[in-house]
Amino acid sequence: MKRKWIAEFIGTYFLVFAGTGAVVIDELTRSITHVGIALTFGMVVMALIYAFGHVSGAHFNPAVTLGFLVNRDVSLREAGWYVLVQILGAMAASGTLRILFGNVAHLGATLPRYSWQQSFVLEFILTFTLMMVIFGSAVHGKAVKSFAGIAIGATIGLEAMFAGPISGASMNPARSLAPAVVSGTLDHVWIYVVATSLGAIGAALVYRLIHEGGSEDEGQ
Amino acid sequence: MKRKWIAEFIGTYFLVFAGTGAVVIDELTRSITHVGIALTFGMVVMALIYAFGHVSGAHFNPAVTLGFLVNRDVSLREAGWYVLVQILGAMAASGTLRILFGNVAHLGATLPRYSWQQSFVLEFILTFTLMMVIFGSAVHGKAVKSFAGIAIGATIGLEAMFAGPISGASMNPARSLAPAVVSGTLDHVWIYVVATSLGAIGAALVYRLIHEGGSEDEGQ
Amino acid sequence: MKRKWIAEFIGTYFLVFAGTGAVVIDELTRSITHVGIALTFGMVVMALIYAFGHVSGAHFNPAVTLGFLVNRDVSLREAGWYVLVQILGAMAASGTLRILFGNVAHLGATLPRYSWQQSFVLEFILTFTLMMVIFGSAVHGKAVKSFAGIAIGATIGLEAMFAGPISGASMNPARSLAPAVVSGTLDHVWIYVVATSLGAIGAALVYRLIHEGGSEDEGQ
Amino acid sequence: MKRKWIAEFIGTYFLVFAGTGAVVIDELTRSITHVGIALTFGMVVMALIYAFGHVSGAHFNPAVTLGFLVNRDVSLREAGWYVLVQILGAMAASGTLRILFGNVAHLGATLPRYSWQQSFVLEFILTFTLMMVIFGSAVHGKAVKSFAGIAIGATIGLEAMFAGPISGASMNPARSLAPAVVSGTLDHVWIYVVATSLGAIGAALVYRLIHEGGSEDEGQ
Repeated sequence: MKRKWIAEFIGTYFLVFAGTGAVVIDELTRSITHVGIALTFGMVVMALIYAFGHVSGAHFNPAVTLGFLVNRDVSLREAGWYVLVQILGAMAASGTLRILFGNVAHLGATLPRYSWQQSFVLEFILTFTLMMVIFGSAVHGKAVKSFAGIAIGATIGLEAMFAGPISGASMNPARSLAPAVVSGTLDHVWIYVVATSLGAIGAALVYRLIHEGGSEDEGQ
Repeated sequence: MKRKWIAEFIGTYFLVFAGTGAVVIDELTRSITHVGIALTFGMVVMALIYAFGHVSGAHFNPAVTLGFLVNRDVSLREAGWYVLVQILGAMAASGTLRILFGNVAHLGATLPRYSWQQSFVLEFILTFTLMMVIFGSAVHGKAVKSFAGIAIGATIGLEAMFAGPISGASMNPARSLAPAVVSGTLDHVWIYVVATSLGAIGAALVYRLIHEGGSEDEGQ
Repeated sequence: MKRKWIAEFIGTYFLVFAGTGAVVIDELTRSITHVGIALTFGMVVMALIYAFGHVSGAHFNPAVTLGFLVNRDVSLREAGWYVLVQILGAMAASGTLRILFGNVAHLGATLPRYSWQQSFVLEFILTFTLMMVIFGSAVHGKAVKSFAGIAIGATIGLEAMFAGPISGASMNPARSLAPAVVSGTLDHVWIYVVATSLGAIGAALVYRLIHEGGSEDEGQ
Repeated sequence: MKRKWIAEFIGTYFLVFAGTGAVVIDELTRSITHVGIALTFGMVVMALIYAFGHVSGAHFNPAVTLGFLVNRDVSLREAGWYVLVQILGAMAASGTLRILFGNVAHLGATLPRYSWQQSFVLEFILTFTLMMVIFGSAVHGKAVKSFAGIAIGATIGLEAMFAGPISGASMNPARSLAPAVVSGTLDHVWIYVVATSLGAIGAALVYRLIHEGGSEDEGQ
């Protein structure tokens, strides 16, 4: 068993445990508030990037792995293992939450507040932007890469903050799939798998387009 | 099409989409609160600086571009293209929000709570300080420039936090113009174009004054 | 008296003074809210790591010292002195709070909201993850160690945020022991000594396992 | 006129304008909340350190200048000019707030909620710790000094968060003096001048004691 798989398992486990745990515990105790939930998501991603980024790259998200695959940063085989381990980690987290707290708040499953089309578009834009921030802050040759954890954590935090009340601000198929399966709320889960994947693929294509063809001038 | 224009377009688009989106979604769902809106503005600017700063300089704001122009960091022609692209990005964001959510909360347009004079003075001070922080943290020869994203993001966040309830804490003509135009709330938009521009110009003049004439002693 | 003991005393004193002080003052004034308490815990740990990390390693937590002992980063004798000084610092903080504010809110003692088993499991997971983040961000050979304070502070902040309403999110035997003793609320304090210690020991064992046997492949 | 005086003037002006402005605007609009006020204080100090630290050392606080004087980091003459400029900047900020908003909430003046003794002790501890964090993160030879702005900003933010409801969490004679004078609320201002100064002096003495005599052993 490779170290990076262990890192992806622990990382995705704790991302889902903390983030969707915040939703569950807020439902039970009414003390965390939406602002606290969004900050939890942002801080957990930031912390995990600094803890595991140098081991596995700190994806913790099948859509992100897919974006890296399209940009040829990981091989197809590698991506498959990553996605599998991420989903297992997320499932284990939702299972732990169900054992500890019962089937509360659908274990933090993401659901569209209004129409599914609205949430689909929103999740596409959210994941597109997240993936652009990842490429720009952690992959681009001129990036100050040590700050990528702050940039990416802030992106997760702010997207959860402003878009959470509408779509749940998933940006992550594993984060949506696990509570949906373990709580038995599978109706809308396809939105969060498809829209986030398309968003990450779209960002990877735009990123490649810019940095292959693009421009002869890159100075200030 | 140059890379830096694409970066300014995407960056300004997402800054306005997330920031004014938070205002719109808070109006619809009453869950984000003013604190959450202010943190969204701060985090989005911080994340975008680390994602795009090395490509375009991460202005995302015509007043900031104007400040750099006065300090001779960009040419007039360059500044014109930047401002155009920023306004297009902001317009596209307000358009997306209108399509997704309808004409809610004037799409996050900034409006003076009390007199226009009060908001004018406030926006001048806010943008003056923002531009001073930008010069001090990202341009000054002795600055630890890798931390500029944190300093500038924090400035946006804190100014939105304390001044937002009075003037909307725009600091950015594009961020005010786009929702005003797309929602049809143009009455006070001139304040946010004029006061912010004057603030950035004022900061650039003070910064030049200090670093040209100023002092022979710069030690501790 | 060694400098590092003074650093551990002052650090643990202020961690407990600020963190449990927030609980006490929120009980008295109802203005800080749970979100503010959690952010206080996160920010105080972050600040103290940058202030004292280069002097004592900035443990401020007997469970963390225990984790370092299991990973052979400190000697048994050294660990004993650290734990003693940490407990004295925490006791002094709880004493100060009692003198200043009286025996309010059990001086911030941690208590299980529902069953003790639930809080025991939660504290185990919280401390396990905290210790993994510490190893990953501050000890691992490839870590960008200057960011460890941000990663660890964020971990404390997010764990206090999402798990605080259930178990109190102690993660720290000294932080739980001191208010329990000084306020006379000793019933459940054993949970917070045993579960957090086991969590830190567990993380140290997993960390050693991964980095001794583990894998021949550590590339991306 | 020296650059560093301009930096101290602008910095203290904006620190007081934003921080006490948040108190005033929250009184008027009831939207910022105590959490938002505390975050404003923390973020403004962090941003200003990165903007002006390399010019003036970013004191913005007579107690901090006093602490540096005791530790022989600045001369008596230099300290006198700094304190004068800081008080002028703070006065200008309180004057601006009075003109813009009227004499609301005593312009953010700090007042003890209960006994003056309690607030005196609290301000002593808060400023002692702030000064220790400053020495530890920005002065100590082994500190990662580029992170000092984050550590010090977080310290201001957390101290405002947990202690603000009791003493106002001044930690800064200029920040208390200016709104007291301009709003005419001078009754308790001596507490905030004396206790904060003693706290900073105390920290400087302890810091010198540790690093002169102290210990022959400073390794991990």
